[in-house]
Amino acid sequence: MSTLERKRWSKRYGEWFRNVLIEAGIMDYRYPIKGCGVWMPYGFKIRKNVFQILRDLLDSTGHSETLFPLMIPETSLVKESVHVKSFEEECFWVTKGGLTPLKVKYALRPTSETVIAPMLKLWIRSHADLPIRLYQIVNIFRYETKATRPLIRMREVASFKEAHTSHATREDAEAQVREAVEVYKKFFNAIGVPYSISQRPDWDKFAGAIYTLSFDMITPDGRTLQIGTVHNLGQNFSKAFDITFETEKGMQGHVWQTCYGISGRAIAAVLSVHGDDNGVVLPPNVAPIQVIVVPIPYKKKERQINQACESIGTTLLQADLKVELDLRADLTPGSKFYYWELRGIPLRIEVGPKDLENNEATIIRRDTLEKQTCKINELVETVQKLIEKMTQDIQQRSWQWMKDRIHRVDSLEEAKQLLRKRAGIVEVLWCSHAECGHQLEEAVDARVLGVPTDTEEKVSGKCVVCGRRAENVVRVAIAY
Amino acid sequence: MSTLERKRWSKRYGEWFRNVLIEAGIMDYRYPIKGCGVWMPYGFKIRKNVFQILRDLLDSTGHSETLFPLMIPETSLVKESVHVKSFEEECFWVTKGGLTPLKVKYALRPTSETVIAPMLKLWIRSHADLPIRLYQIVNIFRYETKATRPLIRMREVASFKEAHTSHATREDAEAQVREAVEVYKKFFNAIGVPYSISQRPDWDKFAGAIYTLSFDMITPDGRTLQIGTVHNLGQNFSKAFDITFETEKGMQGHVWQTCYGISGRAIAAVLSVHGDDNGVVLPPNVAPIQVIVVPIPYKKKERQINQACESIGTTLLQADLKVELDLRADLTPGSKFYYWELRGIPLRIEVGPKDLENNEATIIRRDTLEKQTCKINELVETVQKLIEKMTQDIQQRSWQWMKDRIHRVDSLEEAKQLLRKRAGIVEVLWCSHAECGHQLEEAVDARVLGVPTDTEEKVSGKCVVCGRRAENVVRVAIAY
Repeated sequence: MSTLERKRWSKRYGEWFRNVLIEAGIMDYRYPIKGCGVWMPYGFKIRKNVFQILRDLLDSTGHSETLFPLMIPETSLVKESVHVKSFEEECFWVTKGGLTPLKVKYALRPTSETVIAPMLKLWIRSHADLPIRLYQIVNIFRYETKATRPLIRMREVASFKEAHTSHATREDAEAQVREAVEVYKKFFNAIGVPYSISQRPDWDKFAGAIYTLSFDMITPDGRTLQIGTVHNLGQNFSKAFDITFETEKGMQGHVWQTCYGISGRAIAAVLSVHGDDNGVVLPPNVAPIQVIVVPIPYKKKERQINQACESIGTTLLQADLKVELDLRADLTPGSKFYYWELRGIPLRIEVGPKDLENNEATIIRRDTLEKQTCKINELVETVQKLIEKMTQDIQQRSWQWMKDRIHRVDSLEEAKQLLRKRAGIVEVLWCSHAECGHQLEEAVDARVLGVPTDTEEKVSGKCVVCGRRAENVVRVAIAY
Repeated sequence: MSTLERKRWSKRYGEWFRNVLIEAGIMDYRYPIKGCGVWMPYGFKIRKNVFQILRDLLDSTGHSETLFPLMIPETSLVKESVHVKSFEEECFWVTKGGLTPLKVKYALRPTSETVIAPMLKLWIRSHADLPIRLYQIVNIFRYETKATRPLIRMREVASFKEAHTSHATREDAEAQVREAVEVYKKFFNAIGVPYSISQRPDWDKFAGAIYTLSFDMITPDGRTLQIGTVHNLGQNFSKAFDITFETEKGMQGHVWQTCYGISGRAIAAVLSVHGDDNGVVLPPNVAPIQVIVVPIPYKKKERQINQACESIGTTLLQADLKVELDLRADLTPGSKFYYWELRGIPLRIEVGPKDLENNEATIIRRDTLEKQTCKINELVETVQKLIEKMTQDIQQRSWQWMKDRIHRVDSLEEAKQLLRKRAGIVEVLWCSHAECGHQLEEAVDARVLGVPTDTEEKVSGKCVVCGRRAENVVRVAIAY
């Protein structure tokens, strides 16, 4: 893909994204309720692969998968006072069972802290029960008043991985926050999605948290999208729900908690960050099909060519590659190319009459659209190497693309200009006072993402707003 | 397990089942909303294994997994008039978004025919688009007014596999019904759950179906539990939602549909049918752990015994067995036995000082509690054989148990006596008239399951109610 093409499709990214979701058979959002989408068969497979990577990472770091109820009695939701204030106006409310009004109305979970808390109170007795690290992959609901966007701002978020942990000490909870960040880094690295990590300013942290760390990506149109969050909840919920335990010294204490979440936006991120004018580009570990084999028919050679394709399919399957044959007789090779490029299959193998003669096949990489020929007896090795190479290239390219879009500037005016041009993330020096943060947001008409936590860099200088001494950089962007 | 024990635990089956769910860490139903339960980590793993068996069967028979929205606008639910009548009084209704009343209220899906129909209308154009076979595994909701029972009658059914298919002809839909029955038979056979299949009487079929086939099991207390249903929907929903397609001859037609579902009751069935006084007994393909290794410590030999256990663990792991070691130092062997028997782990391996001396291990089968010793170098083979044997024995035993509880009788009085004693399923001859069916239900104070479809037997005689000529047997039971 040329830089020109990148520019073309990214200019109309919003439209591209909406179209590609339906056309590639990923998600259909034409459901009769706004902000609700259908995961179609192909999209479901992508979703499954992406969340399986996350599952494996969580399972291997001591988390247990569970499934908690969807509905939250209002009496539970109101217990943590900051939490309820943020969420009560965003909840869908169940008020009737059949024809009968309910005595206590139920919220559809916007997140599950207040679902899990009453159960933890039953389960936790002593320090020996801790830590508890649970997660679930479920649908959550927000009555969004902003414009909804498929996969990015939904009223039913059909895929939300939320982890909830409880610990005996403040330090254990702190360590869990750090581990969660490491797990999320591994996850986003695995799917080739580059990220910025920052600590959200206090006015934008999760309702009920002590602090919030956030993963943000830069979308092709130069905005940012929050793709993962990690919260230290301190004892806010454990005090509200009275979740106590007997400490090693025989005292009673409230548990220390964290929670962290990743939604279907992770899939929006994969689709967006690697896409091009021809459709989506899937990293090989996410793709439901890694290699699609397409015969190029030639008069009187059809049978031989199809046989060669079938033999290639069998060989690659035996090498544990996810391979499929497209032998549809009613489609031209050109329309098959279009079909599979749109769906982002990493490699296409073509077999035509010339290939047949030379005992070769032609391989096309989806990311670069580069062609190469390969002897049949070297096919497995070549495909395996190409998959490895493509995985690395995709990661490298997307990280480079992101790094090019983080700009350090010295003035509000420069920041404003860059943000107006949708140039990505802008970094300025900040004195850390909330007042200056708010003024900054207003002056540049953008959102403070927070102080980066993914860099060791020490800075010192003057706050871009007030001119006082500043020892922090802050990241600002036009956020989705 | 002796017959005596079976009798003991089955007598108090309801209590046993409720207790075992929490005590074995399967489901905790003490959530603040009645009829909603939490799948705990161990239970979640059982659920995952059971549904994976079902997934594999569906994937290999041309079904595609999808995910549709939860909420149904009232305007969709009312379209099929018979359907809505049955469900509107059973739905939870969302009436508010935040603080705002919704113009159209939303039902939480009790089942998804009316969710999927508007999408099929968008997707289906011609006969070439058919058949479409979709399924999803989701939570569904029923505002049950009867007493709820954990896993058996829930208000949130957290695990429901529902398949929905569309076809070009009536015959194709008929064939799909037969295939669905075959898939379900394979599924229940795989988890060792015996079943009766019958066609529900018209007054008890799914609301909106032409007819309903049902899988029922006999619970240890001699009642029946509906564990799977297959419905032929004809064109009822496709006409209500105007789902049309161009036929091969260029005409417009409405699609023919089927749907079929299996819920978390499948797990209730596995747990119930094989259980005993010591807890649940899991078939090896459902068990999260197939072999638990427990050291029997002996003074000054602790280290050697633990090492022998670790070596056994590694060996079995390499043979692809799901094995875990219980090296907890604070528990006696006896309390470990209790712990793992409660959870139904198929095999326990003990290593004590005598075993160590003889280069042996002791193996205990969970289903029979039989002990045997085995040379360490023959362990893998012995364990694999035992797992196979246990799988077969469990199936055979549960089928035999069920067959012993199907009784053919000639009079209403005999039927009534057997049902009063909770003797299982009773078969009587029936003239197939609804009126006699209702009288039968009243006379024996039980429910007509329907005419069996799992037998080739031809019968002829007199209807047990009216004495007219009867060419059908009908099954009757006290149903949960």
